[in-house]
Amino acid sequence: MRNLTLLTDLYELTMGYGFFKEKKHEQTAVFDIFFRQNALITYSLAAGLQQAIEYVENLHLTKDDLDYLRSLRLFDEDFLSYLADMRFTGDIYAVREGEPVFPGEPILTVRAPVIQAQFLETALLNIINHQTLIATKAAKICRAAQGGGVMEFGLRRAQGPDAGIYGARAAIIGGCASTSNVLAGQMFGVPLSGTMAHSWVMNFPSEYEAFKAYADAFPDNCLLLVDTYDTLRSGVPNAIRTFRYLRERGHEPKGIRLDSGDLAYLSKKARKMLDAAGFENTVICASGDLDENSIESLKSQGAKIDLWGVGTKLITSEDMPALGGVYKLAAVYEGDRETPKIKLSDNTAKITNPGFKQVYRITDKQSGKAVADLIALRGETFDTDKPLTIRHPVERWKELTVENYSLRPLLIPVMEQGRRVYDFPSLREVAAYAREQTAAFWEEYTRNALPHLYKVDLSEALLALKDRLMEQLRGSGKNV
Amino acid sequence: MRNLTLLTDLYELTMGYGFFKEKKHEQTAVFDIFFRQNALITYSLAAGLQQAIEYVENLHLTKDDLDYLRSLRLFDEDFLSYLADMRFTGDIYAVREGEPVFPGEPILTVRAPVIQAQFLETALLNIINHQTLIATKAAKICRAAQGGGVMEFGLRRAQGPDAGIYGARAAIIGGCASTSNVLAGQMFGVPLSGTMAHSWVMNFPSEYEAFKAYADAFPDNCLLLVDTYDTLRSGVPNAIRTFRYLRERGHEPKGIRLDSGDLAYLSKKARKMLDAAGFENTVICASGDLDENSIESLKSQGAKIDLWGVGTKLITSEDMPALGGVYKLAAVYEGDRETPKIKLSDNTAKITNPGFKQVYRITDKQSGKAVADLIALRGETFDTDKPLTIRHPVERWKELTVENYSLRPLLIPVMEQGRRVYDFPSLREVAAYAREQTAAFWEEYTRNALPHLYKVDLSEALLALKDRLMEQLRGSGKNV
Repeated sequence: MRNLTLLTDLYELTMGYGFFKEKKHEQTAVFDIFFRQNALITYSLAAGLQQAIEYVENLHLTKDDLDYLRSLRLFDEDFLSYLADMRFTGDIYAVREGEPVFPGEPILTVRAPVIQAQFLETALLNIINHQTLIATKAAKICRAAQGGGVMEFGLRRAQGPDAGIYGARAAIIGGCASTSNVLAGQMFGVPLSGTMAHSWVMNFPSEYEAFKAYADAFPDNCLLLVDTYDTLRSGVPNAIRTFRYLRERGHEPKGIRLDSGDLAYLSKKARKMLDAAGFENTVICASGDLDENSIESLKSQGAKIDLWGVGTKLITSEDMPALGGVYKLAAVYEGDRETPKIKLSDNTAKITNPGFKQVYRITDKQSGKAVADLIALRGETFDTDKPLTIRHPVERWKELTVENYSLRPLLIPVMEQGRRVYDFPSLREVAAYAREQTAAFWEEYTRNALPHLYKVDLSEALLALKDRLMEQLRGSGKNV
Repeated sequence: MRNLTLLTDLYELTMGYGFFKEKKHEQTAVFDIFFRQNALITYSLAAGLQQAIEYVENLHLTKDDLDYLRSLRLFDEDFLSYLADMRFTGDIYAVREGEPVFPGEPILTVRAPVIQAQFLETALLNIINHQTLIATKAAKICRAAQGGGVMEFGLRRAQGPDAGIYGARAAIIGGCASTSNVLAGQMFGVPLSGTMAHSWVMNFPSEYEAFKAYADAFPDNCLLLVDTYDTLRSGVPNAIRTFRYLRERGHEPKGIRLDSGDLAYLSKKARKMLDAAGFENTVICASGDLDENSIESLKSQGAKIDLWGVGTKLITSEDMPALGGVYKLAAVYEGDRETPKIKLSDNTAKITNPGFKQVYRITDKQSGKAVADLIALRGETFDTDKPLTIRHPVERWKELTVENYSLRPLLIPVMEQGRRVYDFPSLREVAAYAREQTAAFWEEYTRNALPHLYKVDLSEALLALKDRLMEQLRGSGKNV
């Protein structure tokens, strides 16, 4: 395994040194990861936990790392010795990978000596921001495909090797059926897709010879790229000729791929030509700058496309290439005494939720559908036999009372006192979990266009704490 | 080193297998990488060559890799044995890292047995697309900063670890002065930046205590984040109090960082307050959703900002998160006989340039400035004592004749017969090269807003070849 320990921002180390000099470095602190709402992100599929935790479990500085830090001339030897022995000894709580999550709610909480909790910030955000972003984008694209298979084709346009590898992983969580990325297939046991490029066709004296050579090599996996010269006048007729050649030899062809031109028109024409030739069972696969919007548009035009190869716009989440998740201090401890912490902002929606918290998903027992999420303080208990009233964190006049409901805590223990207490499910299981849990929401909350905003409310106790801290900070002359 | 050999698309392998079955796999082929023009990309700084070549030099399949490929049930044992021994044995020509390059011109050319050349496609594109994209974005941002230092702060929002690591590398090539990314600092010997987060300030009973603790830990590197509570009423006054404390002890403070609010207004007010208190030599650093546009706007408002911390929008190239570079077949060989190849398209600008080529930069000897680039066939010679006429590849009536010029071939040999023949310069040298070479262009070509389009023309011989191949393909019944 690569040692990524130093994948951290310098300020995590300068703060660590500052805490160390103040002898505050082993005081426990609680940090939450959450993301904020924007026009393009009203819900997400959490992803990246496995790689994030692998980073934490592997956290250690090598002699080379320490020599490098020494060379910066910022730190003293006591501190470097301390870092040499530093391992993660705290607790981590997180939502499962594939869990639908909403703006403002903690999706991962670290409770650890502050020096460690700060050290982890950058890598945790990097990994979880990225995979959650791509899983969410993939879910949008797969929703637009309405059950048609989506193949992740973006490796060549991904932002470096990891973006291709872990982007493919996240795309599978979001519902993609396969990836073109062989290394991701090997690492995660994911189905692979891919047949030929235009260069294959160009490498032969004629299109038919290129198709026939491919059919000879893959008689049972023959999917032909038909747009190298002229889709309808050359590509599809040559594909049909090749398919006849295959059938005469006892093999059934797979289908064709369109990679340019008017995909709606071409797919409808190609379908008719294939059907008329007796190849009704072949598939038509389309690729070329696709995303959820173009797929929806093609669907609405009646395009005859069975499989979608999606590249750049998925693997980079082109319309929003960063999730913007943050890692915010929620509490500090002196021994067992908790001091909850809040970050003020002129922008009310940016004021953080203080304290060590849990998130509950409230499900209506009759419909089986999720009603709202509730952020509460740890230690609060809820009697689900009684009605529950929850309130909007800012627009306080908005309240909701539920009856006949169940509560499920979303944050589960992943690490306790430095040891992992959670077994990672397989990627296939994570993808299935994402599918099941997304189905537990009314479609109005998860649709691509103008979704209804799902409620993420605060408990009475958390609201009261928040009010008290805001009052204290404003009144206390905290500035001096 | 990580073995990334299988970082390739499945179709590179299925095509490889097809070539193998046809016994065409060892025929030499030439492929070019180039990118296309769009509204946001009229020129780029080439980057990523070192990592791309490291991939090529390391290319080998392990036993695990072969077992995995066997498990796909697509390939026979002969082919797997062939892959087991496959190493790169071809030639690679590329522009230097940091070279300004333009749409349509080859920035890397592979000339190798077709099975190898296809295998490399995905990783070469992945690495070069990514780093070239980020280097180019960084150059835009640094240009907007007009000599003010730009610090790369984006790791937490990068698309996975590599995007953070190699994005930081590319940002340095594009002109950034430093990165917050400690691992990138270690790997590439890049200066680091970073001091404290809001959580540091919140961790102390008061802002002043937080500042003082930091000053005690870093008396000679004291840069304070002043916007946790109230920038002008609390942050700057507490910073000044801390700076006095430092100066009394014989240390000069570094400055402050603003991370929210109206950066133009706050920086001007803060500058006055710092100056009035006798801290004229402190710097003001700003961060928070910056890019070239917001920096230009702040500059035009007279913001008093000396250093810029740029995160998300740089590390993801937010307005264009993929460069879209492609890898196109240019020629195939049977023995020594070259058959140049062209890819047609209904979109004239997408028709490729055939043949094994060189790119020349034409420089006017009097001004020392670049005039145009010329794409020519290898083997063409040019007598720079004679006037040179070059022509637009599509708009043929646009021609230019130059006199008193020099020609520099941009593509240099990097690998020959599988061996690297090029020593990688240090990252510092690459960044210096980018700076020097960019200065060889009139600013009209490289400015951020509506740049003049730099000419990339074709030699008469290349134009004639292109015309001939287009004619052949259209007339030859290539489709049957």
